[in-house]
Amino acid sequence: MTEHGKTPVTVLGLGAMGTALVEALLAAGHPVTAWNRTPGRAEGVAAKGASVASTVSEALAANKIVIACLLDYDSVHEVLDPVAAGLEGRQLINLTNGTPGQAREMSAWAGQLGAEYLDGGIMAIPPMIGTPAAFIFYSGSGSVLAHARSALDTFGGVKYLGVDPGLAPLHDIALLSGMYGNFMGVIQAFALVGSAGVKAREFAPLLRDWLAAMGGFLDRAAEQIDDGDYVTGVVSNIAMQAGAYPNLLKAAEEQGISAELLTPLQPLMDKRVAAGHGAEDLIGVIELLKK
Amino acid sequence: MTEHGKTPVTVLGLGAMGTALVEALLAAGHPVTAWNRTPGRAEGVAAKGASVASTVSEALAANKIVIACLLDYDSVHEVLDPVAAGLEGRQLINLTNGTPGQAREMSAWAGQLGAEYLDGGIMAIPPMIGTPAAFIFYSGSGSVLAHARSALDTFGGVKYLGVDPGLAPLHDIALLSGMYGNFMGVIQAFALVGSAGVKAREFAPLLRDWLAAMGGFLDRAAEQIDDGDYVTGVVSNIAMQAGAYPNLLKAAEEQGISAELLTPLQPLMDKRVAAGHGAEDLIGVIELLKK
Ligand SMILES: NC(=O)c1ccc[n+]([C@@H]2O[C@H](COP(=O)([O-])OP(=O)(O)OC[C@H]3O[C@@H](n4cnc5c(N)ncnc54)[C@H](OP(=O)(O)O)[C@@H]3O)[C@@H](O)[C@H]2O)c1
Ligand SMILES: NC(=O)c1ccc[n+]([C@@H]2O[C@H](COP(=O)([O-])OP(=O)(O)OC[C@H]3O[C@@H](n4cnc5c(N)ncnc54)[C@H](OP(=O)(O)O)[C@@H]3O)[C@@H](O)[C@H]2O)c1
Repeated sequence: MTEHGKTPVTVLGLGAMGTALVEALLAAGHPVTAWNRTPGRAEGVAAKGASVASTVSEALAANKIVIACLLDYDSVHEVLDPVAAGLEGRQLINLTNGTPGQAREMSAWAGQLGAEYLDGGIMAIPPMIGTPAAFIFYSGSGSVLAHARSALDTFGGVKYLGVDPGLAPLHDIALLSGMYGNFMGVIQAFALVGSAGVKAREFAPLLRDWLAAMGGFLDRAAEQIDDGDYVTGVVSNIAMQAGAYPNLLKAAEEQGISAELLTPLQPLMDKRVAAGHGAEDLIGVIELLKK
Repeated sequence: MTEHGKTPVTVLGLGAMGTALVEALLAAGHPVTAWNRTPGRAEGVAAKGASVASTVSEALAANKIVIACLLDYDSVHEVLDPVAAGLEGRQLINLTNGTPGQAREMSAWAGQLGAEYLDGGIMAIPPMIGTPAAFIFYSGSGSVLAHARSALDTFGGVKYLGVDPGLAPLHDIALLSGMYGNFMGVIQAFALVGSAGVKAREFAPLLRDWLAAMGGFLDRAAEQIDDGDYVTGVVSNIAMQAGAYPNLLKAAEEQGISAELLTPLQPLMDKRVAAGHGAEDLIGVIELLKK
């Protein structure tokens, strides 16, 4: 299965994602040493050619490149803290989901132990790993990225964001935040029309087309934010929108649908209007999110 | 300007939107009688060929088709209540923004006065009126729609939803709800990356591509909702998402950004998981919005 000359890699964690990572590495011919807390989960990748380490120390000793893909940062510490000395000289690539602060803490901790650190945010679900649809944000040590590059390329696109290890989780979470906002709006829209017996499948094309038509918001917002100018070229100002928004909430209540997913925008709009920004664009509420 | 044989129309309200409607009608050759509370605002459309009525009664008497486009439903009542008898035999088309309940109330009220009623929700901003990008949801009297059709066609696409007059505002508000959810997510995403000094213009293409890649959520959601099946084919279940969501909120706090726009989803996810739906899709939270 593995080819001579391909960088060998250790992978800690054989959950849904860790397993997908190992399979992509094996498929590309990288020698893989795998470890999982619950040993039974290693059988599948062992059958495909992975060496299975029975202890974390053994897994760390096997290869310079160590990829961690566990539940959360606490579990990464739980696994590595007892064998921390084994990290010396390793290149730790942590693809576990976390916050920018957690990534910065772990980078500093690994550095003190003599390990180089690269953080990653996986923008894919396990079946997408190894396909062109997947990409991973990386931040932290550029030399780890360079050394591990051929292995990391097997997972999908590589987007390196810079040396601050917090940047990968930050971008990861920013994209997820955009996505969840979108989901909240879509769920609210379906709940509203559903309250009048309208089939979701009938309404879906209208909603899809409408959101596509409103897609320009994103690029306009980017320009307004970078230029700090929420006034030039405003077509529908925030005072008008703040005035019409109660109808959104009221319509939901009338139809017996909770408006709780959309309520938090109202006070922000009202505050902007009260502070004298009524003639500006809605996007200006971003200023109120900065604490 | 106006041509022989084109249906004559009365328009009440010459704000930004009413003016755009009158201009589209005049451009297509429809005789228009216009009225506005503040008389000065009629000068522009008068110069383009509209007859200006000096009283609401005069405007109602002029034509069978009466389009209202005022600030809100209260202002429509304020304008029409004192001259209600003049509505007898009229076809009232109300393109003012409101809720389904307000549309149903106004339809019943107009019916008692001997007027037929059609409600409309304009999915456009004034400069789009008369272009193919604009469309209007209509609901209520089908015979009003048929009689006024050539006039209404001048505004943009016509989407008739049925006899319940509440359906047009309901669809209007559902699309706006979807849009505002999208805006909330986009604003949160830009705020997050901005907190690390990342330019919004740099991040915008990543966010655009990501939201496009997640676009399948909408169609999958529609199927799941119609079929009442939140389990089949789940790729990322709600228990996993509810477990990872606190990182979204925590990352914002760490970066000095309020997470208030995204917080309302967490308790809904937690409730679904607690109620035994952890293995299902996120979209199931829609059940909790029904009161
Ligand atoms: N799945 C996705 O769609 C997806 C997408 C992007 C990012 N991610 C991220 O990738 C990471 C792994 O996700 P996954 O889908 O593989 O999760 P999973 O299937 O639930 O697997 C969790 C893994 O973490 C291990 N683990 C949990 N707690 C541990 C502890 N205290 N000590 C040692 N090992 C522990 C588990 O070991 P046992 O087998 O012993 O329980 C298992 O290997 C997570 O951070 C997740 O957020 C996942
Ligand atoms: N503009 C948009 O982008 C847009 C998009 C879709 C839907 N709409 C809807 O279209 C409707 C009109 O919007 P617009 O943009 O034209 O608003 P606008 O420019 O603010 O004009 C408001 C109109 O309502 C009149 N009005 C307000 N209160 C009144 C009262 N108590 N009695 C009589 N007249 C009164 C105003 O008359 P005066 O001149 O005397 O003040 C003016 O004609 C609203 O329901 C709005 O939500 C607007």
